[in-house]
Formats: sequence, structure tokens, C-alpha cells
Amino acid sequence: MKTVIIGRGRLATNLLPALQKAGHEVSSINSRTLENLPHEADVFIIAVKDSALQEVIGKATKGREEQLFVHTAGSMPMDIFKGYTNRYGVFYPMQTFSKERRVDFREIPLFIEAEDSDSDTILHQLAESISERVYELSSEQRKYLHLAAVFACNFANHCYAMSAEVLSQVHLPFDIMLPLIDETARKVHELHPLDAQTGPAVRYDENVIQMQQSLLQDADMQAVYKLLSQHIHQFANENHDQLRLTEDTGHRV
Amino acid sequence: MKTVIIGRGRLATNLLPALQKAGHEVSSINSRTLENLPHEADVFIIAVKDSALQEVIGKATKGREEQLFVHTAGSMPMDIFKGYTNRYGVFYPMQTFSKERRVDFREIPLFIEAEDSDSDTILHQLAESISERVYELSSEQRKYLHLAAVFACNFANHCYAMSAEVLSQVHLPFDIMLPLIDETARKVHELHPLDAQTGPAVRYDENVIQMQQSLLQDADMQAVYKLLSQHIHQFANENHDQLRLTEDTGHRV
Repeated sequence: MKTVIIGRGRLATNLLPALQKAGHEVSSINSRTLENLPHEADVFIIAVKDSALQEVIGKATKGREEQLFVHTAGSMPMDIFKGYTNRYGVFYPMQTFSKERRVDFREIPLFIEAEDSDSDTILHQLAESISERVYELSSEQRKYLHLAAVFACNFANHCYAMSAEVLSQVHLPFDIMLPLIDETARKVHELHPLDAQTGPAVRYDENVIQMQQSLLQDADMQAVYKLLSQHIHQFANENHDQLRLTEDTGHRV
Repeated sequence: MKTVIIGRGRLATNLLPALQKAGHEVSSINSRTLENLPHEADVFIIAVKDSALQEVIGKATKGREEQLFVHTAGSMPMDIFKGYTNRYGVFYPMQTFSKERRVDFREIPLFIEAEDSDSDTILHQLAESISERVYELSSEQRKYLHLAAVFACNFANHCYAMSAEVLSQVHLPFDIMLPLIDETARKVHELHPLDAQTGPAVRYDENVIQMQQSLLQDADMQAVYKLLSQHIHQFANENHDQLRLTEDTGHRV
């Protein structure tokens, strides 16, 4: 297919080689100038940050009202295209992209949505040519999906960042955490996160919780520690009653 | 070496086969009864939960004041043995253990501390026979290490649990998050967590942040979302100034 990617950010940087590898003809266009934006393509993919999306749609669709446009944003409804173009949809690859790392697109869940059945067919073909995990999802559900991704990715990564911050206080390198981080991620392939939880908060070890809180000199870090510890304890009680609290465990983290 | 593990929780369950595999003679003793606790061994390893540690030390060391005892707790000082036994130390494997999963001990960072140099030699030998990552660490530093582990493991896992909770609201299965969770963990092998961060909070996309907050009907989940989003933004500003905020990115999470 003839595809055009508008935007040169992290997603665009990763999507371009994935589409090329699948045999598609791909043009990459700077979203700021839209210079040389073709008049026709099978699919125009707008891959820009959410706050720029509306403006780019306005400019890019001009004179291309019968072209198929998609955006790639988890939290933006498909209807953002309404009034600008007659054929549109969403093409949302759920992953955290970096310019420094290439990710294997075949493993990335791709969530698509289309305004009409012809567009739906095209998007299915395009998505399935690069990923083995293609799902149809409404704009409403996708909002929740993206929110869930913020928890699983951005917030989890922030926990790594806070961990690095604590380690730096005693001059320990962050990479000693990697085996623990890896195992924490691997565990939830087999256990529900609620069943995978360990540590002072879930067993409500008040002595350790109090002591650890006092180690945090930064008031914001302390607030995060307190809130998350309480919330872990609450989740455990709501969902598992006394399962873990009565266990005689020697777990260390 | 002749080793005795006191406790039958998650750590003990994983440590026992690791020691056996390395050729040690291992006895496993129930910490509640201490029935058949041998009078002599090269090392007695007390692997019980923190809140039970003091009591188990009191009972287990009686009549064994010249035996080498260690505990396995990140947040407990070595001196907890003082007055009970004359030879003691700490043997802290930093990992999240489950009874359902066996972990490869060779990859687990093992932090040791000993009261005297003879005990230090024995603990080094024992630790290096099962792990390739053995470090000496003081009780004071270990407290911070354990706190950092709570962030990287328990809190990250709780983010997975909250993600699962959000997904359940729209009846999506948790396993669609696994590729994202894996990549988030893999990324910090190459990038510092601050450089790996993506998503609405770090780019301070207020529209998405407000919208996502409103999707959370539970007040506690909303509080967590708000606090973590603010904190991500704050970390980004403190540490990186405008690096990411001015970038024209198409990242999705």
C-alpha cells in the first residue's frame, strides 16, 4: 500500500521501518510544514502529539477530503476527523517508543477503528501486515485502554525513576535493580498482579513502612510512598481478604 | 557447607533448592516450632518475615551462641543479633519470590554483611556458590536499597494491578498489557528511567490528564493518578528542564 506518515516523533521513527519491511511504500512528512504532502495515498497516518493533532488534521486534510486518514492517539476519539474528511479511522499501536530503541512491531497490540467498512478492511490489512495482535476497539474503550497503559507503563517507569533516586542517595548504581525489575515484569505473565505482590505494604508491616517513610527526606517522595503503601494494602484487603496477611513468608521485597 | 534454613516461606522455598544445587547440605526447619533444629551447622539462615524475626532469633540462638546466624531481611540491621549470639551477619537476596515460580539464583544480587572477618569469609563462600552478584553492604545502606526495591518492585507491580483494574472496567483482559510492561522494563536496561519516560504526564498534556482523571470513578485511584502525574512532571523538570517538553513526538503511551 501507499502510505504516508505525518510526523517524525518516536512512533513515526519506529513505524516507518516496520511498514517498509512489510513491503509498503512509505513517505515521511514533517508535520510542521507538510511540505510535499502527496495528494493521494491508500492511508495517511497522522502520528503527532495529541495537542498538535487537531491543527495538523485541519491542514493535512485540505483538498484530500476523499482520502483515508487515521490518527495514532490512544485518548483521542475517532470523530476528531468529522467535518474534515469523509474517510477516517484510528490506528493505535500500544507501546512505549524511543528513538534510541527499535521495537518489534509484530508483538505490539494494534487497536484499530474505522468510520466505514471499506476503511475497516484497509486498516485491517495494513495492521495485520505489521502486527500479529490486531484488535478492533471503539474510541470509548480505547480511552480506558490508554489510561490502563499509563498505569502499566508511565507510572511503573516512574517507580523505577524514584527507585534510582533513592539509590543515588547512598551512591548505589541503578543497574543492581534490573534483575528485580525484570522478575517483577515476568511474574505477571503467570500471576495476576494482585497475587504477585510482595513487600511491607501488602503484608502491612507497619514498622518497616514507618521506618522507610522516615528515610525519605523529600516531602513529595514521602507522599507518594504513603499513598501507594496504603493503596496496596487496600487492594489486598478488598480483593483477597486475609490471604497474604496470615502467611508466614520469608519474601524480601 | 552444612546449612540450616529456618522458615518455609517464599524465600526459603527458593533458597533451599539453590543451596542444594550448589552442593550444600541443607535442612529446612519450621520457624514456629523449631523442632529438630540442629545444634551445629556452618550457617543458620533465618528466613522469616520481619515482624517475626526478633522472636525467632531469641529462640533459635538459645544454646547456640557460638554458631553463625544470618537473617535475610533488607530493612533489619545486623545488630538485631547482638546479645543473642556471638557470630552473626546478613544474607539478603534482593528479589521478589513466589512459591509458584522458581527463580534463577545466579542472577540475583546478594548483599552480605558480617560481624567478624571469619563470618565474612564463610558468607562470601556461601553467597558466591549460588549467585554471581555478591556485594558487601552495611545495614545503613541496605535500608535504602530495600526502600529502592519497594519502589522498583512493589510499587511498579501495584501500577500493574491498577492497570488491570482499569481494564476490567471495559472488560479487556490484562494480558494485552504484557508487551508494554515488558518493553517498559527492557527499556531501563539501556536508558535511565528519566530518559525512558513517555506519556501525558511527562509532556504535561493537561487535556489528556484531566480527561483521564475523570475516567477514574474511584477517589483513591484518582488521588494516585493525580499525585503520580504531578510527580512525573516535577521529576522531568528538575532533572531535564525542557528536554522532552519541546520535542515533537508521536509517542503513544
